[in-house]
Parts: sequence; structure tokens; C-alpha cells
Amino acid sequence: MNRIVLAALAAIAIAGAQTPASSNVPGAEYPAVHPDRRVTFRIAAPSAQKVQLMPGGDDNGLGKGPFEMARDDKGVWTVTIPPAVPGFHYYWFLVDGVPSNDPGSRAFFGWSKDSSGVDVPDSAASFYEVKDTPHGEIRIHWYYSKVTAMWRRIHVYTPPGYDSGKSRYPVLYLQHGAGENDSSWPNQGRAGFILDNLIAERKAVPMIVVMENGMVAPRAGFVPPADGAARGPNRRNEAFGDLVTTELIPMVDATYRTQADRAHRAIAGLSMGAGQAMQIGLANLDLFCAIGSFSGGAARNFDAKTSNGGVFADADAFNKKVRVFWIGAGSAEPPRSTAAKAMVEGLNQAGIHAVWFESPGTSHEWQTWRKSLYDFAPRLFR
Amino acid sequence: MNRIVLAALAAIAIAGAQTPASSNVPGAEYPAVHPDRRVTFRIAAPSAQKVQLMPGGDDNGLGKGPFEMARDDKGVWTVTIPPAVPGFHYYWFLVDGVPSNDPGSRAFFGWSKDSSGVDVPDSAASFYEVKDTPHGEIRIHWYYSKVTAMWRRIHVYTPPGYDSGKSRYPVLYLQHGAGENDSSWPNQGRAGFILDNLIAERKAVPMIVVMENGMVAPRAGFVPPADGAARGPNRRNEAFGDLVTTELIPMVDATYRTQADRAHRAIAGLSMGAGQAMQIGLANLDLFCAIGSFSGGAARNFDAKTSNGGVFADADAFNKKVRVFWIGAGSAEPPRSTAAKAMVEGLNQAGIHAVWFESPGTSHEWQTWRKSLYDFAPRLFR
Repeated sequence: MNRIVLAALAAIAIAGAQTPASSNVPGAEYPAVHPDRRVTFRIAAPSAQKVQLMPGGDDNGLGKGPFEMARDDKGVWTVTIPPAVPGFHYYWFLVDGVPSNDPGSRAFFGWSKDSSGVDVPDSAASFYEVKDTPHGEIRIHWYYSKVTAMWRRIHVYTPPGYDSGKSRYPVLYLQHGAGENDSSWPNQGRAGFILDNLIAERKAVPMIVVMENGMVAPRAGFVPPADGAARGPNRRNEAFGDLVTTELIPMVDATYRTQADRAHRAIAGLSMGAGQAMQIGLANLDLFCAIGSFSGGAARNFDAKTSNGGVFADADAFNKKVRVFWIGAGSAEPPRSTAAKAMVEGLNQAGIHAVWFESPGTSHEWQTWRKSLYDFAPRLFR
Repeated sequence: MNRIVLAALAAIAIAGAQTPASSNVPGAEYPAVHPDRRVTFRIAAPSAQKVQLMPGGDDNGLGKGPFEMARDDKGVWTVTIPPAVPGFHYYWFLVDGVPSNDPGSRAFFGWSKDSSGVDVPDSAASFYEVKDTPHGEIRIHWYYSKVTAMWRRIHVYTPPGYDSGKSRYPVLYLQHGAGENDSSWPNQGRAGFILDNLIAERKAVPMIVVMENGMVAPRAGFVPPADGAARGPNRRNEAFGDLVTTELIPMVDATYRTQADRAHRAIAGLSMGAGQAMQIGLANLDLFCAIGSFSGGAARNFDAKTSNGGVFADADAFNKKVRVFWIGAGSAEPPRSTAAKAMVEGLNQAGIHAVWFESPGTSHEWQTWRKSLYDFAPRLFR
């Protein structure tokens, strides 16, 4: 065997033991994922007294932290944690108690800051990986919003062939969760690759996906519109609804080659974004034909006859209007998942065609939401 | 005065004292910039023994660190540093000696990781701010590269009107520095806003800007091409040259509405990217009509007669071929700036039309490179 083949075999042998996570910065060996999904974290901190690994949240797929890390004689701290749930997990180190990003991992906007993340491969799922298929683009687009009195950034997925053709496309408005932003679906959610793969396999129709920032609480110095003071405690979501319906949709329809009618417009989101999608979608059925709630839980005291302004009271009318009404969660996130499932059962009993989806073994995390998008998107615009 | 006007005046009064930096995550009050450009940094670290502020590099516009931070009785550490140089500056905290990002600042890819950054306003420059003008888009595009045996991500600026029209555009290939990547020019460099503003003021012709990742050192498991072993110590740049000339340019010309000839193609970069732009540009004058070196310094033992394969030996031929040959640096980065200036003087004496640009008071930092792009781009494709 020549030198190059030997080098390749050596690389494969090393990879068999442990592999740098795909979420690492180039050149970083840690975090490293073992074939059994144990994960080794490492950081140099020679003058620290104590270093711990802290997953982002108690139901994080890395397990419940903090995990104590062990110091070697050079001041490098290491821990190998038990097999992790596949998928993307936020985390940070606690360096003498202070949350500190891992210089070996890329940062992803979550927890209201740029947080470290590690992507643990899922041997049963490649639908969100980059593949040798035509790729769409993720576009960063800026526009001015009067509702929020600021220039706003959005991320927009345009499908393969958008530039070379003249077709018009349906649009999915897709929202992140609390503490995340418009970059979260493209980065940690891999929305672009998921759509690329679905479209390549002809499982979903080509569509545009618009991702805004749903955390629209006013900034310092923000002067609310004249009627702003009356909006009450739910102000954040209501302001986002105004933004979506009066500014975002008209701007998107004027800027991109959209099919600008309700039959070709859907809204979905995860967690906080699921609540926004349900609230904005159900209140604006003249604008949307499909609604997706990813890990959104259930409304308190839900009643199919009276909830959401009675929109479910006439099941036939609702079913005729709402082509896809999709509610899902991870099986490992009760009571949110059990409550959502019970709501779907109640809706079904009331004659509403609500779809229930459960991602097995995953919690309130991105693997649930990647799988949700993978199940939801193919149902749209048929 | 009514309540809204009072609220606005109060906000202005607060802003007069200190303002959250534009680079902060939403809602973060610190880092805060004072009107005299002093900057206050703050982090909660109750169980740390020592916390310091560390600017990224010795010639960083925040000054030479580390700066000691003072602890209050709640464990919040604060420092206010002397007036900073305007512009974007990398930094991090040292928490008991361990580099730790500031949760109040966004992360920007630099120093081979996602690093905190603070943008200090420049009262004399607004050319890189978002303005009420037509905006282009920054597109995230993926393609497969055989030279580097990997899927690669690029950022591409398309000018305002690209989607609605049918025009073809010239292309600037624009490179970041060592330890940065293809996101650095759009994020910390604000390349999109700079081009938007130049185009709106008709100071630059509308153009496409392509930003690749010039750190092409092979990844773990990478099998080099058969001739790879012979490339020697300068391998990284040479592989990048192969990538640009044999894969990137053909892909861009096939994907975007470019003017696909040398008269409408330029290459520029900063620091390491300046070296790449000079090397790739001068070796491929059949492909490029303009070259920009931002803070690139000078070649060792530069000789206009013999350097770069004698490309400067016939000044008339060179001047005819190279429409813009632009070399610049910040005045605060000697000996790099003085060496570059001397090289330009040598070139000029040899009859070469090389442009010299100096950004007053700025060092080996993004304010120099923003100003470089603002001076360079208007000269292109005239």
C-alpha cells in the first residue's frame, strides 16, 4: 500500500475510536463523539479551581448536569459523558462557576446568547446532512419594520433552481424558540439541508422558507406605537403577529417569487414559536392554509368548542379551510408532549383533522424539531 | 409633552451617558460605550477569584490587556477602559485565567473560534451602518470541492435589484484574515452594508462579492491529491489558489449572473487574505483585472524587476493589464504599514500604477479593512 492509502486507513482507524463533532470549529479534536455516542469534552484551564460541563437545560440530551471534569497535570480538564441522545445539544463549561463557551465548538444563538453546541450523529437519520443533491440558498435579508421601529434581519431559504427559473413558490413561515433567533433554524436546525433533501427526493414540493426573529420585545429607547400601551401582558406575541401579518408577509410577497395567497402560505414554529404559529395562524385563516406546532404544548383549559375564539366550533368548516393542522412533540418531553397529545385527541373527537406526531426518545431539543420539520414540510401545499 | 415624547427624551438622555454596543445581544446593557468612547465591560462571576478583560491581540483598538476588573459585593466584575479606537474589536474575559466569551456580546468568527466582539461607533464614519437605501442580500451557498474533498460554504453578496432584473454583474472575490472565515466579512466587516451604501450613492458600480474560507488546511481524514505531498510549506495558499481558479470561479460564473471575464473580476483580501489575493491575482492575470491588498504587508526582499515571477518587469504591460492595483494598511500598524508603503513607492518608481491607501489611526483591525473596502470598491470595473 502506498503512503496515501496508509494515511487514509490511519484516519479511518482513528475515526473508529472517536470523531470530532461536526459542530466543532475547524481543527478542534474535542468535543469528540464515540461510536456508542459517549462524548468527550476537553478544555485547557490550568489556573481554574473547578471546571464542569453544563448541558443547556435539565432535559438536554447530554444528560443532567453539571458533570465534574478531571484535571490532568498540565491543567487540561476532561470528561466523557454516558451515551448522549442523538442530535444537537446546547452546553457550556462552568469555569469556577462562570458559564464559558467551549473554544472547540461553534457558537449557536440560543439561551439569549451565542452558546456552544455539539451535534451527536444519529445513525438512523441522515435527512439533515449535506448530501450530493441540488442545494437551495439561505439568504440574509434586511428590511425596515414600523411595528418594531427597527431594521430587521431575516433568513430566507430559496429552493434549488430559484435563480435559474421563473416559477413562483409557496411559503412556509418558520419560527424558532425562546432565546433563539432567525439564525437558529438554518444553523442548529439545518432547515436548508432538510428542505434540500426532501425536495431532491420529491417528498416535499419546492418552497420558500422565511425565518424571522420572534423575540420582538422592544429595545431600549424604543417608542411604542400610539396604541401600544393597551396590548397587555401578551404584548410580545401580539407585536410579532402584527409584524408578520402587516409587514413581513407583504414584504416577502413583494420581494420573492411567491404564490401570494392563503393556499400557498403556512406557518409553523417550535416551543415559543409554536405558540406564535398557533396564535397568528388561527387568528388569520385568511392568510394561512396550514399550521404546525412543534413542541408547543397545549393551551390551558383547552375546549374545542370555545378555545381560540371558537375557530374549532365548526369542524367541517375548519377542516375545509385548514389543509394541514399539525401538532407534535418529542416523546421524552412530558408533560408538554402528553398534554399536546391529549389536545389532539380532543380535537379529533371534535371532528378536527389534527395530525399528531411524536419523535421517539427526544426531548425539548432540536432533534425533535428537525424531525418535526421533516414530517411537516412534505404535507404542505399538496 | 405627551407620554411618548417624554419616553423618547428619557431614552435619549440615558443614551447620552452610555449606550449598549450595537454588537451586543438583544437586551444586554454591557458592553456599554460612553460618548468619549470609553467602554464599560461587566460580567457576573461570583465564585471566580480573578476576572480580566483581554483584547484580541496586542494592537487591538481596546488597548493592551489584560485589564483588571473589579468585583462588587454581589460578584459582578466591571472595568471601564480608556477611550477605544473606533471600530470592531475582538476580546474575551479571562476568568481565573481561562478565555471566556462575554454572554452580552455576539460572537464573531475570529482567532479560529467564535470570539466576542465589540463595535465602538465612529462619529466620523457611517458608511458601514444600515441605512434607508435599497439592500442587497448575503447568500449562504454550499458547493462540493474536489480540491479540498469537502462540501464548502461561501457567503455571496448580491446587489440590490439582482432578483428583479436580468443584468449581469462584475465579481469581487474578497477574503478574510487568518483565523477567520467566510462569515467574517459579512458580520464583523459589514461588507453588505458597505456595498449597499456605495451603490446607493453611485460611488461604486453594482457588483457581486464572493467570500470563501481561505483557511483550507486539510481536515482530519483528508486524503491529499496525488501531487499534494510536493507542495511544500506554502501549501495552504496554493491549495486555496487551486480552489479559487479551478472550482470557485467556474461555479460562481455558472450559478450567478456574472460578467464572466477578466475585465469584470477582482480579488482582494486582508492580512493572510491579502497575501492570497496578491499571490492568486498576480499569478492569474488572465482571470483578474484588479487586486487589493488590505494590511498585507510587503514581500520580503521585494524587487520590482524580479519579484512575483517578474510580473512587474514591464510596467507598461502591467499597467495596461491591471486596472486597479491597490495596497493599503492602517497607519497604526507599523512595520507592516511602513513596509507596504515602501513597496508601493518602489513600485511607483518602477512605473507601476500602484495605489497607496492609509487608514488614519487604525491598526491591524476591521476598521482598517472596512475603510479599505470603502476606498477600493469604488475604483473597480470603471
